[in-house]
Amino acid sequence: MKSVAELQNEVKQFVDARDWNQFHDTKNLAMAMASEVGELCAILRWASSTSLVSLEADADIRSKLVDEIGDVGILLLAMCNRLGLRLDDVMTAKLAKNARNYPFERSKGKADR
Amino acid sequence: MKSVAELQNEVKQFVDARDWNQFHDTKNLAMAMASEVGELCAILRWASSTSLVSLEADADIRSKLVDEIGDVGILLLAMCNRLGLRLDDVMTAKLAKNARNYPFERSKGKADR
Amino acid sequence: MKSVAELQNEVKQFVDARDWNQFHDTKNLAMAMASEVGELCAILRWASSTSLVSLEADADIRSKLVDEIGDVGILLLAMCNRLGLRLDDVMTAKLAKNARNYPFERSKGKADR
Amino acid sequence: MKSVAELQNEVKQFVDARDWNQFHDTKNLAMAMASEVGELCAILRWASSTSLVSLEADADIRSKLVDEIGDVGILLLAMCNRLGLRLDDVMTAKLAKNARNYPFERSKGKADR
Repeated sequence: MKSVAELQNEVKQFVDARDWNQFHDTKNLAMAMASEVGELCAILRWASSTSLVSLEADADIRSKLVDEIGDVGILLLAMCNRLGLRLDDVMTAKLAKNARNYPFERSKGKADR
Repeated sequence: MKSVAELQNEVKQFVDARDWNQFHDTKNLAMAMASEVGELCAILRWASSTSLVSLEADADIRSKLVDEIGDVGILLLAMCNRLGLRLDDVMTAKLAKNARNYPFERSKGKADR
Repeated sequence: MKSVAELQNEVKQFVDARDWNQFHDTKNLAMAMASEVGELCAILRWASSTSLVSLEADADIRSKLVDEIGDVGILLLAMCNRLGLRLDDVMTAKLAKNARNYPFERSKGKADR
Repeated sequence: MKSVAELQNEVKQFVDARDWNQFHDTKNLAMAMASEVGELCAILRWASSTSLVSLEADADIRSKLVDEIGDVGILLLAMCNRLGLRLDDVMTAKLAKNARNYPFERSKGKADR
């Protein structure tokens, strides 16, 4: 059971060991995220709501999704490292902000929120 | 200093309280990630490598980046919740896989990896 | 009824008049496309297959989609201008290539193609 | 020298012949665009402003960019077909709107527009 700080540090060490900090500015990382999220979209783009449940249970599809989720996570933590942020602080603050913007009495069960 | 498990549980409670699980299948979440990563891209798209450092230090830009990083993180953890995964397990496995695919003696300092 | 060449020239004049060629390298334009496609995704991300037909018919949603489609088109033609390509040539070639990759006897009615 | 209408009709025939209209709702097409734009981003994500010019001139990179540009174009015209729009009308209207929003005396040479 890892802390976010540990995970972020593992990403840092991975990047440092390969001397990749020179490529990891926020612009390049955002673009790399667009590419990895694009791969997630590629897997799911033609799925219908009825086929989706079986797709999500399919071992091969699942393993592809897991790989892309991992890559998005790595890039997101690399971006936090670049900006000197900790993802848990960022997310706790954003969840609080979203809670104000989407009070549950008004947002409950609504897609348009 | 939060564990990934705690953070993932906070996202779960946020989503449960708003009855949003009905919208949170992997397809919709991937699409929502494309939208939030698109907002990161919108902030940085015209930045030159010379202007980027001052952009990253600008309080207003920084606060916009932080907001989008938070939203991508929330969606990523919501997707892990949907698939019954823990992000730290996924990321540890992906870092190990990437370490095999990008051995540092061969990838060091190379953008094309 | 405009030719693609005319449309591409209109985009060129728009960009030239604002002295924006300095920002319009392929990297920035790809990133700008990720941002505009992200806005398309934002509009549609929570739509279910049943709500989609009425969404597509809703005047307000339609007008937002039209705006984003226009922006993606402008960026795509700006990218062709940057690379000295004509979109109709590129598309005719790609349709021929896709026709070889997805022969209709094998791809007919299949999402996984 | 093709008109946009002809090109849009070629896309329609390609899709009809494969019975793919069932997959081509606006949501799936937007998601497919996110995936193809993601591939454009993948090609260019680590490029520096100095390496970009030689990348854009490299025959292999160029051919990959051309392929993705073609796919984005096909999806964009498929979306216009789905919504009963003509891309040239949409783009002419959007260029006029952008011209109002970005008057050149104020936008000239400015990235933040």
